[in-house]
Amino acid sequence: MKVNQRNYHTIWLSDDNENVIIIDQRSLPHEFKTERLNTVADACVAIKDMHVRGAPLIGVTAAFGMYLAAQEAKVDSFASDMREYADKLKSTRPTAVNLAWAVDQQLSLVAEGQVNPEPFLALATQLKTDSINRCYQIGEHGLKLIKDLHDAKSDVVNILTHCNAGWMACIDYGTATAPMYLAHDAGIPIHVWVDETRPRNQGARITAFELQEHGIAHTVITDNAGGHLMQHGQVDMVIVGTDRTTATGDVCNKIGTYLKALAARDNHVPFYVAAPSSSIDFTVRDGISGIPIEVRDDHEVKYIQGLYEGEIKKVLLTPQTSPAANYAFDVTPARLVTALITEQGICKAEEQSIKSLFSK
Amino acid sequence: MKVNQRNYHTIWLSDDNENVIIIDQRSLPHEFKTERLNTVADACVAIKDMHVRGAPLIGVTAAFGMYLAAQEAKVDSFASDMREYADKLKSTRPTAVNLAWAVDQQLSLVAEGQVNPEPFLALATQLKTDSINRCYQIGEHGLKLIKDLHDAKSDVVNILTHCNAGWMACIDYGTATAPMYLAHDAGIPIHVWVDETRPRNQGARITAFELQEHGIAHTVITDNAGGHLMQHGQVDMVIVGTDRTTATGDVCNKIGTYLKALAARDNHVPFYVAAPSSSIDFTVRDGISGIPIEVRDDHEVKYIQGLYEGEIKKVLLTPQTSPAANYAFDVTPARLVTALITEQGICKAEEQSIKSLFSK
Repeated sequence: MKVNQRNYHTIWLSDDNENVIIIDQRSLPHEFKTERLNTVADACVAIKDMHVRGAPLIGVTAAFGMYLAAQEAKVDSFASDMREYADKLKSTRPTAVNLAWAVDQQLSLVAEGQVNPEPFLALATQLKTDSINRCYQIGEHGLKLIKDLHDAKSDVVNILTHCNAGWMACIDYGTATAPMYLAHDAGIPIHVWVDETRPRNQGARITAFELQEHGIAHTVITDNAGGHLMQHGQVDMVIVGTDRTTATGDVCNKIGTYLKALAARDNHVPFYVAAPSSSIDFTVRDGISGIPIEVRDDHEVKYIQGLYEGEIKKVLLTPQTSPAANYAFDVTPARLVTALITEQGICKAEEQSIKSLFSK
Repeated sequence: MKVNQRNYHTIWLSDDNENVIIIDQRSLPHEFKTERLNTVADACVAIKDMHVRGAPLIGVTAAFGMYLAAQEAKVDSFASDMREYADKLKSTRPTAVNLAWAVDQQLSLVAEGQVNPEPFLALATQLKTDSINRCYQIGEHGLKLIKDLHDAKSDVVNILTHCNAGWMACIDYGTATAPMYLAHDAGIPIHVWVDETRPRNQGARITAFELQEHGIAHTVITDNAGGHLMQHGQVDMVIVGTDRTTATGDVCNKIGTYLKALAARDNHVPFYVAAPSSSIDFTVRDGISGIPIEVRDDHEVKYIQGLYEGEIKKVLLTPQTSPAANYAFDVTPARLVTALITEQGICKAEEQSIKSLFSK
């Protein structure tokens, strides 16, 4: 999508095809910076320290990380080096299933006996293209839902979203935002309530930035506000992303998603989850007991980053010595999810419905 | 309660009895400052700009504001001057019923024909003492609930609270915190999950400060985290305050309270509201349609205040030109409230139960 009127993806090859360039998202929305990843260690840092974030982008970045790894691995220990690099990449973030999935795809090339970088580049590029296509397809399916609401209402459709499941979390279009971009481009009037999404404020920083650059009407709200808006009929639908979806339709997404799902249910607001198939973990049945929840540094709660006199600063919010806890995700039980919007179509958040879409 | 080992109230008379001294809460927890209110205009600014906040403290500050007004009002237009000052005080914050209630109490002295400051001082002092006593009584009733949970569990009782309904919102003890202070002082082990409470972070700034100064174990969390904690059995009870309680038990409190009540219900966690009788508005039956919700400046969402290199700074969180909305309160329907803890005892959030406690 566009930044300063120019089309970007979130990750691309350097002109010499040897390295990878990303948008360093840590300084958004105040500064738009790109960063060159020269080594697999750079890719690990970029994922772990959230220069890139969002399940689909993490997966593709890890896939390109394996391409960088293939350039670094020694000829006489290629396979074992690659498995070591794969472990390092996989350990950067524990929750996102896309990460392990993308790395394992690359490892299958190692198992096949590949020892040159090219096939790893080809696969990473393929995963990138697939991700763009999946997002576009999610957009097409979700667009119908927005269009139906607009047809019924004949007025602006108000959509609430949490965190950033936008193109900055993917390669292009985004997952939760894809229906919004396609609806906007189709001339359907929409307005997006953007949860700021503490502690890292990916909504206030990144979703708001994305929507503004694309010209979509939006309003930033605190994470506390969504329930009140729903009580007063100001939300027509919720669309969020997912970091991991169970075989039974439980949704693990950014902390606080569950609270919005509860409010949507209490106010008869449809709650949709944009779920690319890569997010579905068919090995887990119960999200609450079965998905490990990443606990991040408490500094992310105690400090917050913003712009002060043109520079990005972190200010302390709490008493210096008060403890804080930083759970990064929560699980929304399938019973609260109206439907999953996948690249294959829309299905209920139920095992049979999911299975029938993916015939697994 | 204590700050730096010294006992404080949140508001007190100057030594010469002419003016009023408050704790200016805007710079907490980083700086502890007091401020002298010399005029009714000072009192209006202190309430409107949230040097003081919290329904009970707003009420008592307004009552002392009327004492300052009585010193300023002209002899030959005393009654009309006082009514004008009363209107100014009442217009500072639209939601808190205590504010209008306290000012109206003072106006009844005007209607009686009082023209000297002394009776207004006596009444303000009485309202202050009443508030302290009410909080202590709420603490005694809530203490029993905590004790029962501790007896059943034989382990630390985990209590979640939202915003600051602590002594800093009152005169002493607080409302939601009074049971916590009394339980701690009675030797019952408790731990408090403190919602940071965006946008103004009264939890992260003030509740955490209060609990730390009193030595109560606590952990600051984002407003998004409570549902996850409840899903995993880490919250034994919720206690929040209320800015306005309807005759039927609906609770208008800091934005986001409703989301915590939904999560508590979904996870069978008891949800208690510490409701001094002064918060009960017997004229309103339906909280969602009947209570006006204050919409505050969007700068409170777009900017956040914290400590940077020893100085308090405000940093910008969102894109500079993204719109934001700042709803300050929401309404939790009575059906989600386990019980109200009042100074008269504990009652269900139901009209008959409330009436029987207050025989109104």
